[in-house]
Amino acid sequence: MLDAAERWALRRALEIAADPAVPLGPNPRVGCVLLSPAGEVLAEGHHRGAGTAHAEADALARARTDGVTTSVTGATAVVTLEPCAHRGRTGPCADALLEAGIGRVVIARQDPNPVATGGIERLREAGIEVDLDVPEELAAAAETLNRGWEHGLQHARPLVTAKIALTLDGRAAAADGTSQWITGPAAREEVHLLRTTCDAVLVGTGTARADDPTLTARRPEGALYPRQPLRAVMGTSTAPSLPDIDGAGEQVRLLTHDPSAALELLFDRGIRHVLVEGGPIVTAAFLRAGLVDELIVHLAPTLLGAGRPAVEDLSITTLANRLDLDLVDVVMLPSPGGATDLRLLLRPRRRTA
Amino acid sequence: MLDAAERWALRRALEIAADPAVPLGPNPRVGCVLLSPAGEVLAEGHHRGAGTAHAEADALARARTDGVTTSVTGATAVVTLEPCAHRGRTGPCADALLEAGIGRVVIARQDPNPVATGGIERLREAGIEVDLDVPEELAAAAETLNRGWEHGLQHARPLVTAKIALTLDGRAAAADGTSQWITGPAAREEVHLLRTTCDAVLVGTGTARADDPTLTARRPEGALYPRQPLRAVMGTSTAPSLPDIDGAGEQVRLLTHDPSAALELLFDRGIRHVLVEGGPIVTAAFLRAGLVDELIVHLAPTLLGAGRPAVEDLSITTLANRLDLDLVDVVMLPSPGGATDLRLLLRPRRRTA
Repeated sequence: MLDAAERWALRRALEIAADPAVPLGPNPRVGCVLLSPAGEVLAEGHHRGAGTAHAEADALARARTDGVTTSVTGATAVVTLEPCAHRGRTGPCADALLEAGIGRVVIARQDPNPVATGGIERLREAGIEVDLDVPEELAAAAETLNRGWEHGLQHARPLVTAKIALTLDGRAAAADGTSQWITGPAAREEVHLLRTTCDAVLVGTGTARADDPTLTARRPEGALYPRQPLRAVMGTSTAPSLPDIDGAGEQVRLLTHDPSAALELLFDRGIRHVLVEGGPIVTAAFLRAGLVDELIVHLAPTLLGAGRPAVEDLSITTLANRLDLDLVDVVMLPSPGGATDLRLLLRPRRRTA
Repeated sequence: MLDAAERWALRRALEIAADPAVPLGPNPRVGCVLLSPAGEVLAEGHHRGAGTAHAEADALARARTDGVTTSVTGATAVVTLEPCAHRGRTGPCADALLEAGIGRVVIARQDPNPVATGGIERLREAGIEVDLDVPEELAAAAETLNRGWEHGLQHARPLVTAKIALTLDGRAAAADGTSQWITGPAAREEVHLLRTTCDAVLVGTGTARADDPTLTARRPEGALYPRQPLRAVMGTSTAPSLPDIDGAGEQVRLLTHDPSAALELLFDRGIRHVLVEGGPIVTAAFLRAGLVDELIVHLAPTLLGAGRPAVEDLSITTLANRLDLDLVDVVMLPSPGGATDLRLLLRPRRRTA
């Protein structure tokens, strides 16, 4: 059980771990706060990407250099992820905590990485008190923080979120092709937040041609977020380059129609979470291949009666073969002075044959 | 302000007013509870349709005949609708209350009928205390109780609720025409509840031909609800008769394509609330004509990628001409062991030209 100072410290560790200056991808985001036995903050640290110090080492180094040297003997280390027990580009964090004289370690999430795990055991063998009993909401936040990374470890492919925006009658555009904007400002703002929390955004060549999208993550007033996704265009048809924008993510062309091949190319580049933004053919291809982990639907309370469907052919001809999803969450997205859209979060149901 | 006994009595009056044995249509549903000055129930009454006693007269008659004659002098009459002040097939209720010596009258809703109104004034002129300050939730229930009837008074046409069931991608059937069932048991149960609270259910000839629908209101175990809607089939194409079912509502054929003409025919038959259940062409015709007052969408978390759209052509070719609706309410409808559908309640937005 955590005391109030430790709960606060864990919240803070989660906050600094999520530093938007830290790249996503094949390294977990980790935060660490060192507390004195009286519950005062001695130092904070976080991981800043491949080749940099781990969060624990970063915090210990800061305790040594922040003005005067702060003693960490008997201190509590509050960390968002189990300290590693392996020697990679940096030494094992479990050993570093032991050597520094840390007396207690609070851990929000166990390391699912088979290479790195073992830190808890090592600490406990050395007689250190290890506490995993963190509040549910903070444990969930620690899981969410690295869900792309964890997914990559378990499935050897990126986590895939598909996003579609459509009318009540399933249209993504009117008969003449007009589609801006089906949804209101609140839903569109969400898309930009999604982009800045994914490693890559992917569209098909058709969307690249038709919409000339920037695929950047922008704040409502137009400025770019500090963290921008890789911008991927998938398909073998010709398509123009995406607009060249200062501060936008790198662009990459994936010369394949196969969602599985596209994900492999992205995974090899270190991408662990992909946002598939359409068009309807690409989204259908990912759904058909069973490669969508979650579907976000922005549903606008409007009807068109005709126009481009938001999801193209899924090779389904009869109701029994439909693609069922589990509805996880529904949120109303009111826009000031405008319509209230809905955001649905769904997960394709795995078929039990 | 009502006391606790009066609040209870008003709830009870609303309950008895909604007696499912009472036909809907061109007469309001009204309930009345008579309370002694000590808050004890002296008698209850309700209106049972055209030509029968009004609720107040019914309650007074019961006070006189329930075993021994009960004195109602100084009693409080709690009524769901303003007592009438006009002489129709029965005498004015306001006068009946006065003559009986009632001391106080609680009224949940004022009568919007210009012919019948004036009861409050008559009672107050006679020195009776009239209290209209009822809890909001009970006032809303009194309004809902007769919304078809009130709509008819205001607009000289029935209230129209359109109901559609569709997939996330706007399909009402798969490519081969299969459509049973897109939604789960919870949503389908709601449809039957809707039918038993409407005066009429309307479908097009296409649906009558394709689905052979019974258009009855059934309980989950299959038994018919006591109140069954009129069953209307609209259109000029040939269509078979609806199945002949014991206890089902009367069937009527409306030989027109024009929603306005269809509503006029139904209104003349005393229908005040119509449930339009499709198909997609009929629903689109009502929407296009601006004759849908509320739209209920049962949205199933499933994808088909192809198949019959739930709403056919609305003569909209560009996004700017879309038919916007206001999202009023969203409810999750979980079915045990099955999917969770969504029910959306929407109201078409009136265009401000």
